[in-house]
Amino acid sequence: MTIAYADCSAMDASDPLAPARERFVIPHGVIYLDGNSLGALPRSTPARLLRVMEKEWGEDLVRSWNTNDWIGMPARLGARIAPLIGAAADEVIVADSTSVNLFKLAAAALGLNAPRRVILTERDNFPTDLYVLQGLEELLGGAVTMRMVARGELESALDEDVALLALTHVDFRTGEIHAMKRLTAAAHASGALGLWDLSHSAGAMALHLDADDVDLATGCGYKYLNGGPGAPAFLFVARRLQGQLRQPLSGWMGHAAPFEFAAQYRPAEGMRRTLCGTPPVLSMAALEEGLRSFDGIDMGALRAKSRALGDLFLDLVEARCADAGFEMACPRDSARRGSQVSLRHPQGYAIMQALIAQGVIGDFRAPDILRFGFAPLYTRYVDVWNAVDRLAVIMSEESWRDARFQARAVVT
Amino acid sequence: MTIAYADCSAMDASDPLAPARERFVIPHGVIYLDGNSLGALPRSTPARLLRVMEKEWGEDLVRSWNTNDWIGMPARLGARIAPLIGAAADEVIVADSTSVNLFKLAAAALGLNAPRRVILTERDNFPTDLYVLQGLEELLGGAVTMRMVARGELESALDEDVALLALTHVDFRTGEIHAMKRLTAAAHASGALGLWDLSHSAGAMALHLDADDVDLATGCGYKYLNGGPGAPAFLFVARRLQGQLRQPLSGWMGHAAPFEFAAQYRPAEGMRRTLCGTPPVLSMAALEEGLRSFDGIDMGALRAKSRALGDLFLDLVEARCADAGFEMACPRDSARRGSQVSLRHPQGYAIMQALIAQGVIGDFRAPDILRFGFAPLYTRYVDVWNAVDRLAVIMSEESWRDARFQARAVVT
Repeated sequence: MTIAYADCSAMDASDPLAPARERFVIPHGVIYLDGNSLGALPRSTPARLLRVMEKEWGEDLVRSWNTNDWIGMPARLGARIAPLIGAAADEVIVADSTSVNLFKLAAAALGLNAPRRVILTERDNFPTDLYVLQGLEELLGGAVTMRMVARGELESALDEDVALLALTHVDFRTGEIHAMKRLTAAAHASGALGLWDLSHSAGAMALHLDADDVDLATGCGYKYLNGGPGAPAFLFVARRLQGQLRQPLSGWMGHAAPFEFAAQYRPAEGMRRTLCGTPPVLSMAALEEGLRSFDGIDMGALRAKSRALGDLFLDLVEARCADAGFEMACPRDSARRGSQVSLRHPQGYAIMQALIAQGVIGDFRAPDILRFGFAPLYTRYVDVWNAVDRLAVIMSEESWRDARFQARAVVT
Repeated sequence: MTIAYADCSAMDASDPLAPARERFVIPHGVIYLDGNSLGALPRSTPARLLRVMEKEWGEDLVRSWNTNDWIGMPARLGARIAPLIGAAADEVIVADSTSVNLFKLAAAALGLNAPRRVILTERDNFPTDLYVLQGLEELLGGAVTMRMVARGELESALDEDVALLALTHVDFRTGEIHAMKRLTAAAHASGALGLWDLSHSAGAMALHLDADDVDLATGCGYKYLNGGPGAPAFLFVARRLQGQLRQPLSGWMGHAAPFEFAAQYRPAEGMRRTLCGTPPVLSMAALEEGLRSFDGIDMGALRAKSRALGDLFLDLVEARCADAGFEMACPRDSARRGSQVSLRHPQGYAIMQALIAQGVIGDFRAPDILRFGFAPLYTRYVDVWNAVDRLAVIMSEESWRDARFQARAVVT
């Protein structure tokens, strides 16, 4: 028996996270299933940024670095992220972009694990992760080699040359979750360090970096953390590694005493040594509001809802679009799936355009994947019902055949 | 004869740049002489950011990457900076921080100029420039060496091993200007490339990167460009070098086709290859407003005013604080001086605190330098008169002896 709208409405009524939706601006008529690409706007963000602009920048001017503790933002935001990822407050800091942070941490790992010289990663890792590792490999010439293997060959590719295993926790195409604890243990058993890109998992599920004995991690501020477009990213370094860690983007904000203006770099204690340039205060303040949207949220409950939303979506697709030609591109078992579902369809691009025209915003990833992300803080069960309802109509009416949905534009 | 307040008032009345002050928020009772550290708030910035947050992010959501051309911001802002620095629109792009960009360009220069392996710089270069070069040196082990010499020894230190001469155009302590054209020519004559940090000059004077045959440059968005605290920085690469340039922070935004999600990095054409991660849209939008504050401004007139403001300050200090123990720390000749003046005084820290308590905001740089910056778009001649007037009173009354001015806090 197909799940009815009323069933979904009842699920929302008993959802302990339902009130969190009020913390966000969700435009009228939009079903937003792309929080895995850009998180929605927290209701408090505009007022916060106005205050930072008009009061802190406009009136207090340069004094705000001290009086409004701009200088403390990277560590303060890191401490807010820490409980979301199972880390201690002094193991996380906010800076730069995920890509830049990947470079820092991968280079640092080579230093921590000399003379090993291989970086092992997955061929289907998120492209920027691959590109940054390729950039490091090219810069270091023969001194480091990248080894890209298929997902299933990772553990057997760990040998005595591997300095670092660098992976993304949740696959951006398929939503499949890597076993972080097991792979980290396998890396350690072979003498390698592990670096995790948490861009598609932080804020969508409980993570346990310390319990899983993770070494290094970074992740995105603008997806499930709701920090705004291009928000700064975060870095995690296990406390046991911080003292030895050296990273090459050794800008002044990572110096032990940046305002001494000494000629010689001397790394700060702890996570501060992973900083480089001056923090982008406006973007940082927006991220801080994004993180505040997690205040009082139980991450276990959040993960349970994330799984339930994905299961509901797939149940409904199976029930209502059975003959539409979709192929499952994500694990059916929600325990193995991040907070997104992925479907393959040869007409995936046009179908997604037709959905967007109907107010259902997911995204498309070449060559044929439709992605639907579920941000449990603001996605309702009825949103999922309505999304699949519109999808079913589009498929049965074949409205994706419309020329305006077939024309390819730049896709983000 | 000492210059009178009325003389300054008359200079403001005939100043062609005077109307530009209306483009900024300057708090009542504040004389802001620290635009060289953090530019003032443009009046249009809060409304612009509200629109970006509420309309573009809040309503249009992820679609804004295309519909509101977020994806085009790095190049669009670069094109706005280009005329301020004497470059072509396609030679400038905005990304990351100055420190991160220094790393990219220094590493790129080593690739462009292999097998040379020495990076030559000045011992008194801005610390983050030194630290980033040290980080690159450490990462590359024996493959590159940094050579730090005194200012006067730069040209004689250029030899056949030097791959790159990396300098800051205007010294952050003394305000002294390097002869960009001459030093670039000297570098080229020895077979080296030149990399300029324009943080303390862009937006404060006309620059002529193309005419001066400059190779590579980067600079700060939050000083004279008024982009807000920690605003993104810009990069310049001469068109003749762009095709060969490879930089190691090869994130997805620098890929020829980022949304193909290919596994292999392939650099974009032109300046886009210097990009790394996703652009911080909120900070970018603020920088765009900062750049709009230069609309219609003649950079020659701006530089003339900058020199006149500095000369006025020094004239007044000489006239009114002759016996106060100040020593000139900047060139007296305004042709050799950036848009700041610097004075040494053993009690510099306390004197600056006393000035700030009186609403005159300059800054202090250890061990003994008082800096006063003049942002010609919003600094008036009467501001300079009032600032020195208060300084003269502080010195004659010795009010800097007050315990609250002597106590050291974090200095930015």
